[in-house]
This record gives sequence, C-alpha cells and structure tokens, in this order.
Amino acid sequence: MNPAHIEHIGIAVRNLESAIGFYERILGLKCHKIEEVADQKVRVAFFRIGQTSVELLEPTDNDSPVARFIEKRGEGMHHLAFAVEDIEKKLDEAGRKGIRLIDKVPRRGADGKDIAFIHPESTGGVLIELCEKRNGK
Amino acid sequence: MNPAHIEHIGIAVRNLESAIGFYERILGLKCHKIEEVADQKVRVAFFRIGQTSVELLEPTDNDSPVARFIEKRGEGMHHLAFAVEDIEKKLDEAGRKGIRLIDKVPRRGADGKDIAFIHPESTGGVLIELCEKRNGK
Repeated sequence: MNPAHIEHIGIAVRNLESAIGFYERILGLKCHKIEEVADQKVRVAFFRIGQTSVELLEPTDNDSPVARFIEKRGEGMHHLAFAVEDIEKKLDEAGRKGIRLIDKVPRRGADGKDIAFIHPESTGGVLIELCEKRNGK
Repeated sequence: MNPAHIEHIGIAVRNLESAIGFYERILGLKCHKIEEVADQKVRVAFFRIGQTSVELLEPTDNDSPVARFIEKRGEGMHHLAFAVEDIEKKLDEAGRKGIRLIDKVPRRGADGKDIAFIHPESTGGVLIELCEKRNGK
C-alpha cells in the first residue's frame, strides 16, 4: 500500500470537551475543528501535529462502534489511519491477498476523505484505516 | 509540551515475525531494525513512515508490562509517543499541573532516546510517552 505518512490516530473518549482540555492544556496542541460524522455516530475534534492528526472521537449514540469500543475496553486508541493513493486499487490488492476488509469499497469519512477499514483480525489486533484526500470533491 | 511530531506508535504483538509480515507484505513498510530493550522486556521492530515510526513490541517475559497488556486487552495499540525538547522541564511542568507521571524523571528507552510515560488516568485512557533524541550520547 506504500502509505506516505500516518494520516491520523483515532482516540475514543467519553467526553470531548474534557479530553480536548488535556490535549490543549497539557500537551499544548490546538483543536482547530470539531465535526459531527453522522455515518459513524461520533463527534470528532481535530488536532494537527506535524504530518499527522490526532482525532478525538466521542460517540453520539450508545449503539455506535465507538460507544461499544469504550464499553468493552474503556477509553483509548481506537484506530490508526494511513494516507494512501489509489485507495480502490489498494483495497482490491489487499482483498486478493486474503486480508479481511471491513469496507471493500471506500466510503466518505470525516474531513472530506475517502476511507476504508481493515479488520483487526488481519492486522494483528489494530483497526487500520486507509484514507485518501479527494481534491475538489 | 508543544511536541513537534508524533515520534512513534507502540503496538503490542504476540509474535514479532508474524506481525512484521503484515506490515511488510501488506502495508508495504520496511522493518529497518530489531532491538531488544531489556529494561522493558520487549523485542522491538522499527518501521519508518514519514516523521513517525511504528514500533512493534513483542514481550520477552510473561511478567512484563506488554505481556500483561496483551493478556488483559489482546494485541493492539499500546502507547503513543510525542517528540519533545527539554523533557525534564516538560515533566516538571506536567507534574506541577497535577498530571500523574509514571516516570518523574526520564530514563533510557529504545533507539537511544530519553523517555518518560504519563499515566493513562491523566490522559483520557491513552498511555502517552514523551521522548527526546539525545545526540552524541
């Protein structure tokens, strides 16, 4: 897949404002945007650090993947996203290599990107996201 | 703390060679070094991607923090490391703000860096590492 960089790290939190406080007051990062992603039932706070973003994810519904993650494992790192090009081709290649894909075709994620998740079963326990910035879409 | 970038992401795995296979064969990253860190009872495989490293951590002892993490939560993302300057000063500031520090003074970590961990209790569930590259040491 030859990703160029780590696009973001998704962190599941119970309360967005409280978590933003830590990342701003202690770490010294700056939240530059909060966005609700209806498809994934989360509110997302974005922090930029170098090439990568930290995305804090607060569930907006108890029946969402992030709410279930928190219920099962507590707050913490939820997924790791790699920036790729030609996401459809990369998914197709991974599928042909026997990798279990949550999304066989990309869907629209936060921040105007096309995204797809790979199942942790195929990655050694990490929920991995591929994402591609679509210019002008 | 004003970190410049995410220095690395530590991922707990049961078997280093098997996990390296996924990161090389499917993701297309290249493992450039394997190092044993006796202090933390892990073998570490390093992959570089942009400004950040992925570090796969395989426990070398059943009584190590990474082994206990895997036993409790399964394989997956273990910690998130930020590159900082003046690590002693940053730890001191965080301590004075009431942040619970696992390491009040830095210790020597993998890859010749000075490191210190912040307790997940103070970060919203994420084991956060600060690290500083020491040139010439």
